[in-house]
Amino acid sequence: MSELDASAHEPAAPPGDGGLVRVRIDLGYDGTDFSGWASQPGLRTVQGTVEDALATVLRLPARAPLTVAGRTDAGVHARGQVAHVDVPVQRWQAHPNPLRALGRALPADISVHAIGPAAAGFDARFAALWRRYAYRIRDGVVAPDPLRRREVLWHRRELDVELLNAASLRLVGLHDFAAFCRFREGGTTVRELAELNWRRDGDAPDGLLVATLVADAFCHSMVRALVGALIPVGEGRRDVGWPAQVLLGGVRDPLVQVVAAHGLTLEEVRYPADDALAERAHLTRRPRRGQ
Amino acid sequence: MSELDASAHEPAAPPGDGGLVRVRIDLGYDGTDFSGWASQPGLRTVQGTVEDALATVLRLPARAPLTVAGRTDAGVHARGQVAHVDVPVQRWQAHPNPLRALGRALPADISVHAIGPAAAGFDARFAALWRRYAYRIRDGVVAPDPLRRREVLWHRRELDVELLNAASLRLVGLHDFAAFCRFREGGTTVRELAELNWRRDGDAPDGLLVATLVADAFCHSMVRALVGALIPVGEGRRDVGWPAQVLLGGVRDPLVQVVAAHGLTLEEVRYPADDALAERAHLTRRPRRGQ
Repeated sequence: MSELDASAHEPAAPPGDGGLVRVRIDLGYDGTDFSGWASQPGLRTVQGTVEDALATVLRLPARAPLTVAGRTDAGVHARGQVAHVDVPVQRWQAHPNPLRALGRALPADISVHAIGPAAAGFDARFAALWRRYAYRIRDGVVAPDPLRRREVLWHRRELDVELLNAASLRLVGLHDFAAFCRFREGGTTVRELAELNWRRDGDAPDGLLVATLVADAFCHSMVRALVGALIPVGEGRRDVGWPAQVLLGGVRDPLVQVVAAHGLTLEEVRYPADDALAERAHLTRRPRRGQ
Repeated sequence: MSELDASAHEPAAPPGDGGLVRVRIDLGYDGTDFSGWASQPGLRTVQGTVEDALATVLRLPARAPLTVAGRTDAGVHARGQVAHVDVPVQRWQAHPNPLRALGRALPADISVHAIGPAAAGFDARFAALWRRYAYRIRDGVVAPDPLRRREVLWHRRELDVELLNAASLRLVGLHDFAAFCRFREGGTTVRELAELNWRRDGDAPDGLLVATLVADAFCHSMVRALVGALIPVGEGRRDVGWPAQVLLGGVRDPLVQVVAAHGLTLEEVRYPADDALAERAHLTRRPRRGQ
């Protein structure tokens, strides 16, 4: 989930006669039965499954590695995930309808919405302006709608939206989120949290609770740690200022419980207009100075 | 799914000291892993699972049989299902919080939204004014949102909403729906289809197609047969008037393909105001004269 948690892949497929074409892929998945996005030997991952399907559909000489906007953890879902892959232009041009073919090749828990040549300068990871995640909670004694149980956390105590929002507002902005990030040697934990708010679905008093989080990027487990710090506030067990105090502490607080993965969904990744892509990718590759 | 497909259950639990209390249960379920609503020996059914949980939670001397508004088939889901059960008033009153206890006792693919004593004259099946079903279709080459794939049919050809609606309008009204009902000895197939329309979710051009069907009652497989007759119209393969011609034919047409169960969800059951419940139950128990 971080912009800094892996180096960018270099194209691995041999160029062939016509060189490589960068292809953008928009996709969604039900993360329940995947060991996360990132390929891992012997495990069923989204990346590995899509790379296999692409290699089959485009008859690639070898798996071409995907670069992704949001490296989701095991159990985390996506509706608006974006990836890119560099493939031999000949192979790409030889296929009459890669979208349809991928639809047939992929399992039902992955859906590719769109696939096509990327604009010049596009990089799924480094050109992204921001990522938007949703965390969904059914609070109270009534279990979630069974048809949505795979993407909704059931929290058996009721939560107060106004308390959640009051506490969330104090976390918004450019901060060092080290207190909510899994430690990673050499990585910065400074992020700009542009939005963090809660509402009930359809604004109904018994609606599903949905947290919306928008940031330039998220460090590992950041959304789930933030939600975990806010829940005790929503229950009335902790003060509205507590999550901001944890943030200021700058170290992981064992009192913050990271919430379950299955309530989390990557909903959208936003990129700048085509003519600003390369500039954006250049900017985000630079090391960021914390403040 | 019919008002006439089973006789009303008689209360089976012994009355005990205080007699019986009729309890109304509002619930939803993911039908994927159930062999339908109705109890069948050796099979996992919604009715059997809820009856078991109720017997455990309320410490009933024996399973008390549920009467339901819509007897859904295997694979069909529900969000707004309603049932009633007659239980010894002593057992009911002895439990401090049956809603919470059922939430803990039931599996994640059933959710009870509400449970409590029913108004006088209430009968989940016979007092219902109408039932509302939704049938959801993702049309075109892009697979459905994986998180909703259990409740959405993937139809790989695109469908035209205006054609679907034009054909649907001709089916609305009081008709003998024998052409769309599985034959059942002695049962009437006259139904009043109050609403049958299609829209795209969120009115987006690429939104999920949702058919809404409202009727006083539906005979067995009626919704899925109606949708199956409309799909070729939406594809442009059949004339807008074809489904109405099938209706007039009055016998099942082998050209009508009954669509898959998993796209179908019982969304809502509507009852009259409390003071009109008994009157409504009396009316719907009378045999209906077709026209």
